[in-house]
Amino acid sequence: MKKIDHIAIAVQNLDEAEAAYKDVLDLKWHGREEVATQKVLTSIFEVGESRVELIQPTAADSPIAVFLEKKGGGLHHICFEVDDIETEMARLKEEGARLLNETPTAGVGGSKVAFLHPKSCGGVLVEIVEKP
Amino acid sequence: MKKIDHIAIAVQNLDEAEAAYKDVLDLKWHGREEVATQKVLTSIFEVGESRVELIQPTAADSPIAVFLEKKGGGLHHICFEVDDIETEMARLKEEGARLLNETPTAGVGGSKVAFLHPKSCGGVLVEIVEKP
Repeated sequence: MKKIDHIAIAVQNLDEAEAAYKDVLDLKWHGREEVATQKVLTSIFEVGESRVELIQPTAADSPIAVFLEKKGGGLHHICFEVDDIETEMARLKEEGARLLNETPTAGVGGSKVAFLHPKSCGGVLVEIVEKP
Repeated sequence: MKKIDHIAIAVQNLDEAEAAYKDVLDLKWHGREEVATQKVLTSIFEVGESRVELIQPTAADSPIAVFLEKKGGGLHHICFEVDDIETEMARLKEEGARLLNETPTAGVGGSKVAFLHPKSCGGVLVEIVEKP
């Protein structure tokens, strides 16, 4: 794992949360992106070598909508950048980790991503990403 | 906010979670630290410019024990590094943020820390730290 790529935060109201991260926390705003496959709208901030992503569901069956209903929002997952996702996934399987994807999935901007089950990561949903 | 200083994860069983972050996720282990004032034992990992801290309560009235009981563990808070904590706290108050500390508190290794209420940060407990 090279670095924290991003921290994802599930929110009910993206406008309100975005204003808080812009004006109150004063993080550098990068912009918004819609991820149709996950049925979410994200608002992205930069801080050091990492990003903070606020995530609002765009449909009732979005995985984030389910999380909001259960937990009421807050920190959702942590994503680490890796050099080579296929090698890393093979290593993780070897170590007995429970992967939620058998092969890497297409992420934003040509990246490749995969998720690890919280049971393998001390109760935290972990994503790994290889940048193009 | 300069960078993500650390991400804190509340765990029921530090030995188990520590093994997962060492062996499965393969993060660089820094060591353990007990924070008596918070009644917690932490296991610290380094990744890029940030750290991941696993936190286990050492007493039933630790704030982390309360969180574990309510939420069952997982991502607990995010900490951003700032240059000057007094200036940043004054700016945050000016912006209407709800601070959980009136003045900075002593953190690990001579650092100064303060917490922001989740209501001011899109539902996330946020810590700020000034390093010595």
